[in-house]
Amino acid sequence: MNVTRCSHYVLTVSDLDRSLAFYERVAGLVLTAREGGTAYLRGLEESCHHSLVLESDPGPPRCRRLGFRVFEDRDLDELAGRLEDLGRSVTWADEPHQGRTLHCGDPCDVPLEFCATMDTAPRKMGDFSSFQGGSAMRIDHFQLQYANVPGGSDFYQALGFRLSEYIGHEGQPPEGVFLQRKGNPHDMVLFRGPGPRLHHVAFTTPDVHTLLRACDVAGELGYGLNVERGPGRHGPGHALFIYLRDPDGHRVELFTTHYQMVDSECEPIRWTPGDLRIAAPWGLPGQASWHLEATEFPGVPVEVPDGFSPMTLERFLEERGSHK
Amino acid sequence: MNVTRCSHYVLTVSDLDRSLAFYERVAGLVLTAREGGTAYLRGLEESCHHSLVLESDPGPPRCRRLGFRVFEDRDLDELAGRLEDLGRSVTWADEPHQGRTLHCGDPCDVPLEFCATMDTAPRKMGDFSSFQGGSAMRIDHFQLQYANVPGGSDFYQALGFRLSEYIGHEGQPPEGVFLQRKGNPHDMVLFRGPGPRLHHVAFTTPDVHTLLRACDVAGELGYGLNVERGPGRHGPGHALFIYLRDPDGHRVELFTTHYQMVDSECEPIRWTPGDLRIAAPWGLPGQASWHLEATEFPGVPVEVPDGFSPMTLERFLEERGSHK
Amino acid sequence: MNVTRCSHYVLTVSDLDRSLAFYERVAGLVLTAREGGTAYLRGLEESCHHSLVLESDPGPPRCRRLGFRVFEDRDLDELAGRLEDLGRSVTWADEPHQGRTLHCGDPCDVPLEFCATMDTAPRKMGDFSSFQGGSAMRIDHFQLQYANVPGGSDFYQALGFRLSEYIGHEGQPPEGVFLQRKGNPHDMVLFRGPGPRLHHVAFTTPDVHTLLRACDVAGELGYGLNVERGPGRHGPGHALFIYLRDPDGHRVELFTTHYQMVDSECEPIRWTPGDLRIAAPWGLPGQASWHLEATEFPGVPVEVPDGFSPMTLERFLEERGSHK
Amino acid sequence: MNVTRCSHYVLTVSDLDRSLAFYERVAGLVLTAREGGTAYLRGLEESCHHSLVLESDPGPPRCRRLGFRVFEDRDLDELAGRLEDLGRSVTWADEPHQGRTLHCGDPCDVPLEFCATMDTAPRKMGDFSSFQGGSAMRIDHFQLQYANVPGGSDFYQALGFRLSEYIGHEGQPPEGVFLQRKGNPHDMVLFRGPGPRLHHVAFTTPDVHTLLRACDVAGELGYGLNVERGPGRHGPGHALFIYLRDPDGHRVELFTTHYQMVDSECEPIRWTPGDLRIAAPWGLPGQASWHLEATEFPGVPVEVPDGFSPMTLERFLEERGSHK
Repeated sequence: MNVTRCSHYVLTVSDLDRSLAFYERVAGLVLTAREGGTAYLRGLEESCHHSLVLESDPGPPRCRRLGFRVFEDRDLDELAGRLEDLGRSVTWADEPHQGRTLHCGDPCDVPLEFCATMDTAPRKMGDFSSFQGGSAMRIDHFQLQYANVPGGSDFYQALGFRLSEYIGHEGQPPEGVFLQRKGNPHDMVLFRGPGPRLHHVAFTTPDVHTLLRACDVAGELGYGLNVERGPGRHGPGHALFIYLRDPDGHRVELFTTHYQMVDSECEPIRWTPGDLRIAAPWGLPGQASWHLEATEFPGVPVEVPDGFSPMTLERFLEERGSHK
Repeated sequence: MNVTRCSHYVLTVSDLDRSLAFYERVAGLVLTAREGGTAYLRGLEESCHHSLVLESDPGPPRCRRLGFRVFEDRDLDELAGRLEDLGRSVTWADEPHQGRTLHCGDPCDVPLEFCATMDTAPRKMGDFSSFQGGSAMRIDHFQLQYANVPGGSDFYQALGFRLSEYIGHEGQPPEGVFLQRKGNPHDMVLFRGPGPRLHHVAFTTPDVHTLLRACDVAGELGYGLNVERGPGRHGPGHALFIYLRDPDGHRVELFTTHYQMVDSECEPIRWTPGDLRIAAPWGLPGQASWHLEATEFPGVPVEVPDGFSPMTLERFLEERGSHK
Repeated sequence: MNVTRCSHYVLTVSDLDRSLAFYERVAGLVLTAREGGTAYLRGLEESCHHSLVLESDPGPPRCRRLGFRVFEDRDLDELAGRLEDLGRSVTWADEPHQGRTLHCGDPCDVPLEFCATMDTAPRKMGDFSSFQGGSAMRIDHFQLQYANVPGGSDFYQALGFRLSEYIGHEGQPPEGVFLQRKGNPHDMVLFRGPGPRLHHVAFTTPDVHTLLRACDVAGELGYGLNVERGPGRHGPGHALFIYLRDPDGHRVELFTTHYQMVDSECEPIRWTPGDLRIAAPWGLPGQASWHLEATEFPGVPVEVPDGFSPMTLERFLEERGSHK
Repeated sequence: MNVTRCSHYVLTVSDLDRSLAFYERVAGLVLTAREGGTAYLRGLEESCHHSLVLESDPGPPRCRRLGFRVFEDRDLDELAGRLEDLGRSVTWADEPHQGRTLHCGDPCDVPLEFCATMDTAPRKMGDFSSFQGGSAMRIDHFQLQYANVPGGSDFYQALGFRLSEYIGHEGQPPEGVFLQRKGNPHDMVLFRGPGPRLHHVAFTTPDVHTLLRACDVAGELGYGLNVERGPGRHGPGHALFIYLRDPDGHRVELFTTHYQMVDSECEPIRWTPGDLRIAAPWGLPGQASWHLEATEFPGVPVEVPDGFSPMTLERFLEERGSHK
């Protein structure tokens, strides 16, 4: 039942050409295949067939599934048993370019899928002259706005995810959790908020130069306002980041890589809510939209947690001022 | 009468130790000498004695003088004659570590000084292990908020400055002018606004890594909120930049170097006011304070230009939205 | 029996102060503790007590042990059984700051050790102002010159290591193997040559800027000749690298991070011996010493493989010329 | 008679398409125009029509002219008078896309040309998505192997060039001189050696990332062996550099920018011959060809200075060893 890593996701988009131009030229992903209204993209170092699937759809932009990998096909059967033990119903699906695939909703009905293998494609990280924009290397993690963070945290830990960092007052339920399988701090991140909604998916970028090149190319191609937050430095993990909105408003993060977290003696790190070193060790926070907007899952209603009040720029600056 | 470059400036500060810590550790300047309540700093590549002079003073923070160089001492006499022809009164001063020095107010009473030579000190750009923060290399330009941009532009051009870029509607007086002597686009920049006030002084930084290191060290040392704008990309000049506020609120820019502008066939480049590619080709604008606050010159009253309305974050986002 | 990663190593050095200055100032490691004639160092992002142990010793410089981690203490017992099944004799040791530790020689008598846990220490990757030289982040892999590459490759694969890349003529025994446990291509690398000898240990560095800073500080501190190879780009893995010799001649590599290799469908990549894209996609090869010199293990005789002839600069240039 | 800067040069090449591919894709220059067998290229930030002219010619590769700028057209007449006073004969030429142009040989018959203006073309430094390879920004300096360094140094200083750095034993004639007009240390560099020959022409590159990208693209496109020296750090000036050979063997340097040198109090810096910090503060020297090969000027015989012995790799390593 060895879930190994965050693997891929499926978005609907209203104009496939426009979305492809964005993900190839600004983010720097490469196109593996385009089949009818579906495009399969992967990062420059990835040998798997796809980490991002774009499906043309005239409806509102949605995230259809979040995909994880297990190591071997037989792990899928063990995983299916565990999911049913946890009260989740599972189905088997046949997804193009993937091995046998297991579908299941998480406790807040986030549509998940698991597979062991994919078709392969050549790694492109040596084709230097064709790197574009942010030179996105590989998918790293999902981040969700989520109404029931403690419940979600328990669920993913029951599947073997380890808690690397969390945000919460001592002795109280966490408001944000960073869960990992692949030995760095992130594969799935849940933050308290109106959800379930996909806040962003993060891809690695080689360094600050490619991070900035994504911004510069975004500006050049008319996507300057889509640089919604950053460049900045994360508190947890200490990576450099930017957040971009794609033409349909789906959010993608590019960030330089994270620290290694493999050993069993590593204890989860707790951050205090309102500790502004989390949100912004320096500089400006994101645009208000960064705090408020996210991608819904089709047919899954959004629930607002009790007592939740959204972060606004005014509130952010006020709280930050009080810490000055 | 060969004015060669932007050279140095004199600030008053309320706590000299605190200010030195900021300029050495965050900006990366090096201390040449501290004499009583005065500290002399220079950039890592500078062989002149100082490009920034900090004078301890219990009053409000002020900029006492902006300094330029001429090539040879005899150029000072020719310059003095030209300034008197332009209706400015001049005095001769004896400033420590500088050759013979000429003092003069510009048309808005900005206190200027000119000298041909300074004491020298070793260039430090090979002492890699002692580079700190932003590794500020050398002073590059002054930028002022200024009530009479056309008048100031004429004055500096009468002293031999060339106009490299300007902001203005076609056929109307400029709202911002970039004036240069040293062969890159900037030595003195004047922007329409309540003035005369020193908006910022810019130092070069080697690359985006040292730019980010200034931010990271600012955050680490408790100056995270002092990263007032950026990292971002300039429209005019296309340099990467950050703006920092020092502990007294004086603003310093770090930026990667500019293009060369030496040849006589180079025509000034005009930018349209409200073209948001000027202020921010991508990402967020600065904090509101970036648009509103600046350092006064001692004893020089601040005049608000007719019909001036300050840029606010709300206005910025609104205007940007309308251009989306 | 889950070996998780390359973890730590133990070197003897003739002058502990001098070696510490090198590893702290040039490579950028941080000192966790110094106890008598032993110093414990770790990378900036590491929370484990040590990844490099320096032991003062008047004899010739040697590598005393190469350390790996297993996930949990009980994995050690399973591992001990497996090693004995493979014909290796094991002993249990009590090493300071480590949990229960298993000692064992590999098939060429390389002294290995395995433990599940270590004491912890704070991660330092947010202490930006104290980063030095190459800002070494974490240990990544060991590379050995090895007389019996096929035998070694079988042994490590029997312990669960996966083959990510290898060098060899089709259908013939490999001349070099890259073996991994932690999901990137390297934990242990064996190259055909006079051995067993430790060719180098690699630490990650954040980016090309810190890679160059290691070189610049090496030059500034009198270690300029110790930059033995690079900066260059690897063929396999495509990372940027430099190789440094420490004051006793032990070799350390700094490199930017590698691609992820987690999925079961990833097939090992074969490189042809003499394909010069392996050694140097561009630029000069290393100094001759890079090809010839390595650190011995105490009491383990060095065996020269049948028919082995060392690479020399002349031969390298000649072979490269013939491929031009 | 204000010579302002190093401006442009003219090379003959045997295969114009192949040379264009090299300069555009590897060095990153942009093509302004191709007219018959002549191609005009410029750097990304340059608004002048050309800084490199390639002329297709079946003969051996040669450098036809080195071009400098004066500020205004009338400066040309004053310059012509000065050159004749110095015993040089001058001619007036009509070169495409340049204003009135003055031709003259220097004391070793290096073919020079001077003009005040050129046609203009848009600066491209904001077209981020089309930057290629080394992103060469602008021409910076010429370096020659030269049989009579003292004589050449006097000649260029008589034209107003300033000596920024030089290599020589105290009280003896210099072996290398760095001469400048534009306020950084270089416009023309003369080194004692078989000449006159053009050793290289240097273009600026934004930072270490673009420097490495030139190497990576060179390797990818089959020019890996053409990375003849570097990446490395200069002793004088402390810039990062690489040297590339174009398909005909003409050498081009890419380097990060230099320090500013404007003020009259700056004294020339003397370096001792054999001080290896000059050639290589760290790492390997260039390939032997870097020391031996250079481009001849058509019809100008090459003279070997008395007592000159070329630097070889063996000699370099030997001398370096003796300094260890």
